[in-house]
Amino acid sequence: MTSDGDRVLRDDRFRRAVLCELARRFYAQGWASGTGGGVALHDHASDGSPARILMAPSGVQKELLLPEDLFVLDAQGTVLEQPAGLKLSACAPLFMHAFTKRGAGAVIHSHSRHAMAATLISGATFRITHLEMIKGIAGHGYHDVLEIPILENTAHECDLADALGAAIDAYPRTVAVLVRRHGVYVWGRSWQEAKTHAECLHYLFAAAVEMRKLGVDAGAIPDEGVM
Amino acid sequence: MTSDGDRVLRDDRFRRAVLCELARRFYAQGWASGTGGGVALHDHASDGSPARILMAPSGVQKELLLPEDLFVLDAQGTVLEQPAGLKLSACAPLFMHAFTKRGAGAVIHSHSRHAMAATLISGATFRITHLEMIKGIAGHGYHDVLEIPILENTAHECDLADALGAAIDAYPRTVAVLVRRHGVYVWGRSWQEAKTHAECLHYLFAAAVEMRKLGVDAGAIPDEGVM
Amino acid sequence: MTSDGDRVLRDDRFRRAVLCELARRFYAQGWASGTGGGVALHDHASDGSPARILMAPSGVQKELLLPEDLFVLDAQGTVLEQPAGLKLSACAPLFMHAFTKRGAGAVIHSHSRHAMAATLISGATFRITHLEMIKGIAGHGYHDVLEIPILENTAHECDLADALGAAIDAYPRTVAVLVRRHGVYVWGRSWQEAKTHAECLHYLFAAAVEMRKLGVDAGAIPDEGVM
Amino acid sequence: MTSDGDRVLRDDRFRRAVLCELARRFYAQGWASGTGGGVALHDHASDGSPARILMAPSGVQKELLLPEDLFVLDAQGTVLEQPAGLKLSACAPLFMHAFTKRGAGAVIHSHSRHAMAATLISGATFRITHLEMIKGIAGHGYHDVLEIPILENTAHECDLADALGAAIDAYPRTVAVLVRRHGVYVWGRSWQEAKTHAECLHYLFAAAVEMRKLGVDAGAIPDEGVM
Repeated sequence: MTSDGDRVLRDDRFRRAVLCELARRFYAQGWASGTGGGVALHDHASDGSPARILMAPSGVQKELLLPEDLFVLDAQGTVLEQPAGLKLSACAPLFMHAFTKRGAGAVIHSHSRHAMAATLISGATFRITHLEMIKGIAGHGYHDVLEIPILENTAHECDLADALGAAIDAYPRTVAVLVRRHGVYVWGRSWQEAKTHAECLHYLFAAAVEMRKLGVDAGAIPDEGVM
Repeated sequence: MTSDGDRVLRDDRFRRAVLCELARRFYAQGWASGTGGGVALHDHASDGSPARILMAPSGVQKELLLPEDLFVLDAQGTVLEQPAGLKLSACAPLFMHAFTKRGAGAVIHSHSRHAMAATLISGATFRITHLEMIKGIAGHGYHDVLEIPILENTAHECDLADALGAAIDAYPRTVAVLVRRHGVYVWGRSWQEAKTHAECLHYLFAAAVEMRKLGVDAGAIPDEGVM
Repeated sequence: MTSDGDRVLRDDRFRRAVLCELARRFYAQGWASGTGGGVALHDHASDGSPARILMAPSGVQKELLLPEDLFVLDAQGTVLEQPAGLKLSACAPLFMHAFTKRGAGAVIHSHSRHAMAATLISGATFRITHLEMIKGIAGHGYHDVLEIPILENTAHECDLADALGAAIDAYPRTVAVLVRRHGVYVWGRSWQEAKTHAECLHYLFAAAVEMRKLGVDAGAIPDEGVM
Repeated sequence: MTSDGDRVLRDDRFRRAVLCELARRFYAQGWASGTGGGVALHDHASDGSPARILMAPSGVQKELLLPEDLFVLDAQGTVLEQPAGLKLSACAPLFMHAFTKRGAGAVIHSHSRHAMAATLISGATFRITHLEMIKGIAGHGYHDVLEIPILENTAHECDLADALGAAIDAYPRTVAVLVRRHGVYVWGRSWQEAKTHAECLHYLFAAAVEMRKLGVDAGAIPDEGVM
């Protein structure tokens, strides 16, 4: 009933294995196909040394990652360990903004079609309100308007870093930043919270697209009980 | 061919393991993402003591539940066992209404996007008729109009309890209550029946949304053989 | 790499196990949720005795079937073995028509939403042409119009038997019969062919619904190369 | 956490097992249902002999392939090994064009509904631009228009070979050729690249169909930041 992957996630001590198992599950959900997407999370610093960051490499099949494939960075984003033959993700500076500006414990980058489509039906921000799953986003209630900033995409991922940092500053309540026609960066204090945020947001992105097809404005406060 | 999870469900003696396996399968179907959704079921009372209720805790990843994570309640909803560090689900009073008012053996709470979307295209109730899968709902035939009451959602889940109790009273044939922009509560005399009801209802919710897109009114009696 | 289920299907000697493994896979594809759907196939008659038919029982969770849960019927549909506490499927007389009128080696009954939706956009028959997957249906080429008769659904499944028999007679090339707002019966000379037919048909049902949404008439011969 | 199939793909030495595992995964993604689709890849030539090509046979269930079921061809497409009772894929001459004209290391043929639907909304070529996943296609950037030629389908797959060869010549940057109302052929220098190309393209095909439903022209350069 319990798989090896379940055990790794519950145990939570072996962070390299946790990251690989998360990558496998994110791939299975369509967040990391075609070597896209990524994930980074804090490793334990049990000996009192500063926290280190584990990061999936660039351009590899995320569902086949092994613990030895991961980059290790310090809290300033300096690479401490570089697996042979692998390239640091171009997302690294973007991930670092969430770690340093928000004290994130984990950051997920998803290429989900739902995230991408949500940016096609949105202006400067993605807005949605009055859906139960909004409550899964830290600091938000059912009646709130959840607002996620959207960056315009660039040719090179690294060129998004400044804009992402600025969006994080401009939207102090946000736990994510969308990139138009690209995907989303999501974080949380722990990987569990980052995963919960990512699952809730992907639900909300898909819901907004479905609502558009049904002629319902996801960002508008509904007249309850009236159809 | 037969997984450990299959064995647990067929054997059906180890109710804590059954609940965890069901939670894992409901997560895989999109009913419990982002720590949402829930499930509760009767434990055996082999020694003649009153039946006890097992309930998944609040705010945890439902696909990673362990048997020791479950709350135990008595038939009146009083907590008998509280797993360390976990919180009772806010759904508990809603689950209890199905147990006490309907003699349910199991209750499933789903955050499925299909259930949510079904409430967007419905008024005070969800209505559907002339679909074979309606026959999977206890007491209903193919030609019946299946009618599921819809509650307006509230900021806090516990505030739904009275309305859910009233809806159960007002719709004596219903095996489920929808919550607008939120999800659905479904029950059955056993977990097998609750699961069957939940699978049939999610099929019907999705079918109704698809029918809307195809310009077919799910709640209207069709002119058979005429297109 | 190879699961126990894969081995059972490749080996193909243990027909009860084959049927259970197929049922599990059909459930996973949405053909048999809510205890719906079914499957029946020929058992070997290695001792020269007449072929026997194995059939999944009614009203049980198809993904949890065990080899001992199956009914055994003779070539005329008479029940030879009845598993304790289980009920013969109401589909039995429908399955028998495919076995006797067509010499089928296996019959699949699916409640897929795609099959159901295909009947909502069709008249007396489902018609589709100029799709590569049509070639997966025995006796059909790419340029053919594949035509599947559609029965009007009845309150009780057994009341469909005569109409299904008549449709099989009226459409000598068909390998399937749809039932409006219900699902589809599909067969083949072996379970492999029945499964291939079922996979191709479900693809075509879904394709026709998608084409409708894109404003393309699935039953019409396209102007090739012109958009 | 790591399945046998993961190990086979990471190890990458046992190419027959790699091909079977890929076929299983492509089936699970809907690229090879109903015995459709296919895959071929280079085997190692560790002894200095010319590279050989492994190819899945025709008309079998691709998710149940065994290493001994594969055809072996030389670099000119001559069959070197023929598994008993199996038929060479009608795709063989099409696969060979990608191997010989492009030096492919692997070729994937998919019957995905998304690929098929993408041809329904396209003219002589499939065109898409300004989507991050375009960067997963070798030689393409975010701002490029990705253009995939579309062949008109024929009654017999072998009749497509000349047109596919001509399309490969006419579109020197393309890594794929679509076939109208049929599917797509995709290749890469290695199976890893072919799989990455296939995953990115299937994402883009599905995205284009979704964009059409949302009223967005996938082939047009967007006015960034303006909705």
